[in-house]
Amino acid sequence: MSSAVRIPELPELPSPATRRVTLPGPFRMRRGGVLPLVHIAYEAWGRLAPGRDNNVVLVFTGLSPSAHAASSPEDPSPGWWEYMIGPGRPIDTRRWHVVCVNSLGSCFGSTGPASPDPRTGEPYRLRFPELSVEDIAAAAREALRALGITRVHTVIGASLGGMAALAYAMSFPEEVEQLVTISAAARATPFAIAIRSLQREIIRSDPAWQGGNYPLGAGPREGMRLARKLGLMSYRSAEEWLHRFGRERIPPERRAPGTFSPEFQVEAYLEHNALKFVERFDANCYLYLSRSMDLFDVAEHGSGSVDAGLARVAARRALVIGVTTDFLFPLFQQEELAEGLRAAGCEVRFEALRSIQGHDAFLVDEARFAPVVAAFMAAP
Amino acid sequence: MSSAVRIPELPELPSPATRRVTLPGPFRMRRGGVLPLVHIAYEAWGRLAPGRDNNVVLVFTGLSPSAHAASSPEDPSPGWWEYMIGPGRPIDTRRWHVVCVNSLGSCFGSTGPASPDPRTGEPYRLRFPELSVEDIAAAAREALRALGITRVHTVIGASLGGMAALAYAMSFPEEVEQLVTISAAARATPFAIAIRSLQREIIRSDPAWQGGNYPLGAGPREGMRLARKLGLMSYRSAEEWLHRFGRERIPPERRAPGTFSPEFQVEAYLEHNALKFVERFDANCYLYLSRSMDLFDVAEHGSGSVDAGLARVAARRALVIGVTTDFLFPLFQQEELAEGLRAAGCEVRFEALRSIQGHDAFLVDEARFAPVVAAFMAAP
Repeated sequence: MSSAVRIPELPELPSPATRRVTLPGPFRMRRGGVLPLVHIAYEAWGRLAPGRDNNVVLVFTGLSPSAHAASSPEDPSPGWWEYMIGPGRPIDTRRWHVVCVNSLGSCFGSTGPASPDPRTGEPYRLRFPELSVEDIAAAAREALRALGITRVHTVIGASLGGMAALAYAMSFPEEVEQLVTISAAARATPFAIAIRSLQREIIRSDPAWQGGNYPLGAGPREGMRLARKLGLMSYRSAEEWLHRFGRERIPPERRAPGTFSPEFQVEAYLEHNALKFVERFDANCYLYLSRSMDLFDVAEHGSGSVDAGLARVAARRALVIGVTTDFLFPLFQQEELAEGLRAAGCEVRFEALRSIQGHDAFLVDEARFAPVVAAFMAAP
Repeated sequence: MSSAVRIPELPELPSPATRRVTLPGPFRMRRGGVLPLVHIAYEAWGRLAPGRDNNVVLVFTGLSPSAHAASSPEDPSPGWWEYMIGPGRPIDTRRWHVVCVNSLGSCFGSTGPASPDPRTGEPYRLRFPELSVEDIAAAAREALRALGITRVHTVIGASLGGMAALAYAMSFPEEVEQLVTISAAARATPFAIAIRSLQREIIRSDPAWQGGNYPLGAGPREGMRLARKLGLMSYRSAEEWLHRFGRERIPPERRAPGTFSPEFQVEAYLEHNALKFVERFDANCYLYLSRSMDLFDVAEHGSGSVDAGLARVAARRALVIGVTTDFLFPLFQQEELAEGLRAAGCEVRFEALRSIQGHDAFLVDEARFAPVVAAFMAAP
């Protein structure tokens, strides 16, 4: 670290179980720019095997979760993948040392647009360099190295996390034994790009965004609330809502007054869930992470061809999971991954799960996801 | 008309071919409220048969078009359904007298929230009573009566227009011989409600909306632009955009400067089309028409059951068209209509078209739609 770098006060970590590791030097971003100082927040479960390299499972998150993927004695509150990680669970912490990282660019302890730029002491905001999924992967790898881990047995992730897992396996092929992608894609469809682009525009058009210069903690709440509603629509399925809400009404005594105020239960559900999100996510971090998903393209690793990009993966085994009702990362994209990895010499298991919960099914459909991941991870 | 009613100056009609008829008395709205003075704008093609009642085709529009469905000598510019209506076209104006109405509540010549309230001379804005699809149907029927037409041979519409056609056939069963619904529904799914609800919230959260009190012509442009983008996403299909745009980029020299400015062609397409819409649609009218689609429910005509509602239809023949890639009014909703109408004793032709253009296919997929409508309309 150069002597010009001031070490600013770090924000509080989101969970008592979250730790933070400082990368040893400046971090060069794939699309240009350098971060002089990078912290990566993580949580870990299970014990690192004596060799430090043969029982590590690295978990990447989707766009919005923190590293708190599962409970632990230090933080008994349930994590976002509670059913998946723990003793006796599909990713069995009696066997595996599981590390979940908060993505570079996020706001739950890792360095991102809301973090102070050590050169000025002010938050980076839009001075944060353009973020790529490969940066998320590379920062996680540096974090593991700082922890003394040089190989991972399995890298796993869903959605953005699945893209990061792919990026990891392509960028550091000799260091990955197994790859698990869930509801991921080699690159985004124009429909997914359109949805995320509109979410970002909704946030940026909120006057409270102030061109990115809002005071931290007092950002574009209205824009974030509306963008999150659009996100929720793209994460679930029309079929699920038909069963769950039908045309059920909000009881009249609980309706807000005014023309056009919500009348249907599905509107109340969206409002409730969107408000929860607004409380906890920084708008600029959201914009950067969202854009990184549009830009990610496996073909960039293979001179313009997805298959050539996937051919860089040297993992011995891979599990590719998709969901029939996912229209954000549709099934044909999982098939593309499975075929490309197979052609690359991976032993691939492909699962098309008939969950009704769409893109978010991995978070909630334990009955379908747990056995598939458990079977894959149980192999010797 | 009572003497208290002032006749305010009417806004210009959108096309030299558009005419306007004044309903003979006050118009009572289904969900409460009375409009003292209602104008309905319409265009007509072909000749009314001597009996005035056996060759009329009534066309209802989707949410956003005007009554200019097809060109004519008075206005040779192409209409929104140009391929469908005209001499030798599927709705052949050598045989049929076609009347397309601008919906009650819209802003292309018919009375709506942007029209002056004759009691005050000021635009209704949110003092306009709650609008239902049945009101759109009933106002059109009054308009036809004012023109001396007491029966229609065929009532036809797509999307909101399909709902209005259904409402017409249920409300005035003895006056309709044939019913054609395209990409319509007996009632909206919670997913469709969620999309429209978010569109309305985006508009209402634009400070320029001013609680509905914006000066006419200077409304919430930003909110309308963003809401329209969400509309465009729901009107087309992910499959179409994959073929049409893939991951094509906007040439760098044509990109706007700034972080997060559009980079992909699909983003440029959305921007272009959204801007076109903002220029021509009134925000409050949009809100009312949008909400009417959420509220419409055939079951209200049948003591809680869709089938009992459809049983009110007494048309001799019906054509029900749906599109495989439509996720706003999915195919199962067309099947529900076809089965219900068949059970009601209609001779039903059901067509599931494999268009790639989703909900909007009826506007653009002439190759699939024209022969189906032509065959149905050609029957003696």
